[in-house]
Amino acid sequence: MAQLRIALAQVNATVGDLDGNSALVAEWTRRAHEAGAHLVVFPEMVLTGYPVEDLALRESFAAASKQALTTLAAQLAESGCGDVASVVSYLDRDEAGPRDAVAVLHGGRVVATQFKHHLPNYGVFDERRYFKPGQTLDILRIHGAEVGMVICEDIWQEGGPISALGEAGVDLVVSPNASPYERDKDDVRLPLVARRAAEAGAPLVYVNSVGGQDDLVFDGDSMVVAADGTLLTRLPQFVEHLAVVDLDLPAGATRDEGPIGEFTVTRRTLHDEPLPAYEPLRIPEPAEPLSELAEVWSALVLGLRDYVRKNGFRSVVLGLSGGIDSAVCAALAIDALGADNVHGVSMPSVYSSEHSKSDAQDLAERTGLHYQVQPIADMVATFTAQLGLTGLAEENVQARCRGVTLMGLSNQHGHLVLATGNKTELAVGYSTIYGDAVGGFAPIKDVPKTLVWELARWRNEQGDAPIPENSISKPPSAELRPGQVDTDSLPDYPLLDRVLDDYVEGDRGYGDLVAAGFAPELIDRVLRMVDAAEYKRRQYPPGTKITFRAFGRDRRLPITNAWREGK
Amino acid sequence: MAQLRIALAQVNATVGDLDGNSALVAEWTRRAHEAGAHLVVFPEMVLTGYPVEDLALRESFAAASKQALTTLAAQLAESGCGDVASVVSYLDRDEAGPRDAVAVLHGGRVVATQFKHHLPNYGVFDERRYFKPGQTLDILRIHGAEVGMVICEDIWQEGGPISALGEAGVDLVVSPNASPYERDKDDVRLPLVARRAAEAGAPLVYVNSVGGQDDLVFDGDSMVVAADGTLLTRLPQFVEHLAVVDLDLPAGATRDEGPIGEFTVTRRTLHDEPLPAYEPLRIPEPAEPLSELAEVWSALVLGLRDYVRKNGFRSVVLGLSGGIDSAVCAALAIDALGADNVHGVSMPSVYSSEHSKSDAQDLAERTGLHYQVQPIADMVATFTAQLGLTGLAEENVQARCRGVTLMGLSNQHGHLVLATGNKTELAVGYSTIYGDAVGGFAPIKDVPKTLVWELARWRNEQGDAPIPENSISKPPSAELRPGQVDTDSLPDYPLLDRVLDDYVEGDRGYGDLVAAGFAPELIDRVLRMVDAAEYKRRQYPPGTKITFRAFGRDRRLPITNAWREGK
Repeated sequence: MAQLRIALAQVNATVGDLDGNSALVAEWTRRAHEAGAHLVVFPEMVLTGYPVEDLALRESFAAASKQALTTLAAQLAESGCGDVASVVSYLDRDEAGPRDAVAVLHGGRVVATQFKHHLPNYGVFDERRYFKPGQTLDILRIHGAEVGMVICEDIWQEGGPISALGEAGVDLVVSPNASPYERDKDDVRLPLVARRAAEAGAPLVYVNSVGGQDDLVFDGDSMVVAADGTLLTRLPQFVEHLAVVDLDLPAGATRDEGPIGEFTVTRRTLHDEPLPAYEPLRIPEPAEPLSELAEVWSALVLGLRDYVRKNGFRSVVLGLSGGIDSAVCAALAIDALGADNVHGVSMPSVYSSEHSKSDAQDLAERTGLHYQVQPIADMVATFTAQLGLTGLAEENVQARCRGVTLMGLSNQHGHLVLATGNKTELAVGYSTIYGDAVGGFAPIKDVPKTLVWELARWRNEQGDAPIPENSISKPPSAELRPGQVDTDSLPDYPLLDRVLDDYVEGDRGYGDLVAAGFAPELIDRVLRMVDAAEYKRRQYPPGTKITFRAFGRDRRLPITNAWREGK
Repeated sequence: MAQLRIALAQVNATVGDLDGNSALVAEWTRRAHEAGAHLVVFPEMVLTGYPVEDLALRESFAAASKQALTTLAAQLAESGCGDVASVVSYLDRDEAGPRDAVAVLHGGRVVATQFKHHLPNYGVFDERRYFKPGQTLDILRIHGAEVGMVICEDIWQEGGPISALGEAGVDLVVSPNASPYERDKDDVRLPLVARRAAEAGAPLVYVNSVGGQDDLVFDGDSMVVAADGTLLTRLPQFVEHLAVVDLDLPAGATRDEGPIGEFTVTRRTLHDEPLPAYEPLRIPEPAEPLSELAEVWSALVLGLRDYVRKNGFRSVVLGLSGGIDSAVCAALAIDALGADNVHGVSMPSVYSSEHSKSDAQDLAERTGLHYQVQPIADMVATFTAQLGLTGLAEENVQARCRGVTLMGLSNQHGHLVLATGNKTELAVGYSTIYGDAVGGFAPIKDVPKTLVWELARWRNEQGDAPIPENSISKPPSAELRPGQVDTDSLPDYPLLDRVLDDYVEGDRGYGDLVAAGFAPELIDRVLRMVDAAEYKRRQYPPGTKITFRAFGRDRRLPITNAWREGK
């Protein structure tokens, strides 16, 4: 038997910030060292951040990443942490091309490196564009235990490196990951990790990134699973966290080397013999799982906070219409940045109801955000009179005067503008391009309207109730003409969201939708709206992905597209 | 020997329009039949258009594509064209997944099918996301000649299907392509096709798409190359064209079948024996190559025309500032759509020079486009006074009032708005988001500023001289404050474009740029501007790609990105 104390460093790296990320790894390795860990595992590509997209192809960046890795190895030793084996993932590049790589740093040197084998090229992932797959596996003997590594997608695929490690013989597998959050995904991860542990015949230490990066948010949810699939511990979601776990490993692995299947296996030894027996720490209890709504809320808060912070902003400005969407966006922004960094602007037009103004005011009073009123009547009148605008053109000019107002305040005061549209609106094109669609970030872009209401009710139950009850309960309206409500132009939201769930997330065709029981006229109408709005979605700001299929790189459809389902 | 008359059908399909594209294939097969052709070859995925992006993943669309193929086979026979072997590429789907496929239709049936093997996953291509690679090769005996097929990327890669065909033995290779235009690419295609003909040991018939699809334009440039690499004929660029070629084939191919390398080769026979000898047609002369500037101009005109037409618009509206960019966009729009479908709007502010108005007026008079003047002074004053905007915020509000004006006219009258920014501006962020950046399409988005001038001069030499001389010769200015010129904020354009060419198209790092002789301060300044403008580019409308690396899906960088070259 071999004892090993392993630290899981669930950290929040920043894409491109090699210096900052190196400092982050050094700091958390120091903490692991202080806790007596022999091995500390960081998330996938912690040194460069993830995903780096086309930076992966730039030779200067790959060279800087490799340089940062060796510098970091030396720094860790100089700071007295050289005895800890630090599993640091980074961007490598060799004659074959760029590599999604992991290294083990120990004693001031890089003692092992390995490249990711399975390269996901679906959904939000384009890794076949960037990386060449690895064919080698380094197994490291640490205090008598044989430790293998696999990177992220390598554990999502049956067979491959995990099987080879199982066949070669390992006592432990560690896995750096950058697995983006989406609803219900954590229910998938545990059984998956458990299956792979069984395939390897060894405990599996799964460490995932945490933090926001453009339209992705990583939720952490790191874990340790025993060889028999039992969950030993699980880290909290959406926060940086260090967990330290003592494992009692069999140290009975066979020690095959050389070619195994398509892989070349190399054994390296840091310490041949097990440590003298020591008293293990109590394994930390698995973190209490978040409720579904708490999880989504946390994802949206972290995605927004990190977009603002990592892009160098300190404050945001958004329009407050008195409606549910802007109220939820304001509440998210306050949870992310504090009320003092949130600036709300009520921009009533001649068609605005009394409650649109009073509900916005109520929100401001409940939360303490900065609040101002900027009526748009004069602006709108100037455009409509000079250009002779009527009907839809007049409706849109109201939304656009609001957009110009928010951008003017942004330019003048340095706030980031938030676009407050939800996924349902974005799907059917129920928004005004360059109007309510302006913004640097769209916090609820991937949240269907019915979920916006659920989130609002849930958030109001968490003590302080930031969102006015009337914003939740009143019928939604864009208020671009007298007496307008959304259901003048759209089906009821619960029904609409069910159609959209099948068409957008499920990618189902006309026949499937009919079979699901939707009326043909409804299907026609909704699908036509979705298809026609593609050009608007292309110019929409990024926002945090929380569903299986978000708009953006997750769903890539042509704008010029004559295909109509059911034709 | 076996004689064969082959038609190259260089046609313009529309993405998603299965009915329209079927009719197109039927019509051009009829023309080929009338010309006595035995074989007609269409471009890659002619039945669905290309690229279909995520439509490839939708089962209902793949099923409809397969259905359209069999329906088309029957229709061709019914219309008396069943004797022509029609090479029609389409979207297939089997148990392995979606396929980029080609079929031969003959006698009312599908007589051969084959799937693309090499799937490009770089630049603008994401084919590993969509398709499973094929491993089979169908060789068809047509009037005694053994005819093999390879799809697009399969001829861009050394080895692979072409080698296997050469080894199996073929008398002719036909290749459907959807190869997007970029500058200088046609200089690459001929030597490549010639090498592959030699590898196959047979003449190669290369048929490429023509037409615009969102940010891509396909230039045609189809050709026939003899087994020894001699160019036999070449079709004109940027137009639909049918060429008919008689080839005298050796019909001496060995007739291997079964597994060859990684491929399974199957022989199928339409007609075992050669035709009785007949008098061949004279092979058409290769089309006269276009000059470099004529080629770019034609690409931009076709890209713009097809975006407008295929999206159901008939007319466009754009701001005319009197400057070179809007003048060139107007001239392109007139060449694409006719002056009667182009609406120019001069939108002077209090800072606008006299020449900005007179040059716009001059453009209108030279070309006969619809012209109106909409001063923005009142609109701007309303915003700046009410919101207290100064400095950059005031500059931007001018651009945004112009944006709202154009969008208002678009909504009121149904014109598509054109954004007139060039690639250089887009690179360094020298544009106002939701201001001059508004539009459904951006005709010169991928044209560097120095090339805009070259194109203007070239276009004015082609007879009618639409562009005012003063727009070409005066120093460029955004005119957002008194006396402003671009060089207040930017390096001289020729120097700037050279840096951008290395950084954006070349993806070179700081060290390379220093080695290229650029001053470190200049590099720092330009690269910082480029990196900081990523968020603006994400919300910019699509525009025709003409360079090796266009902004958009061709260059995918994170917005949140702390990496700075040279740090």
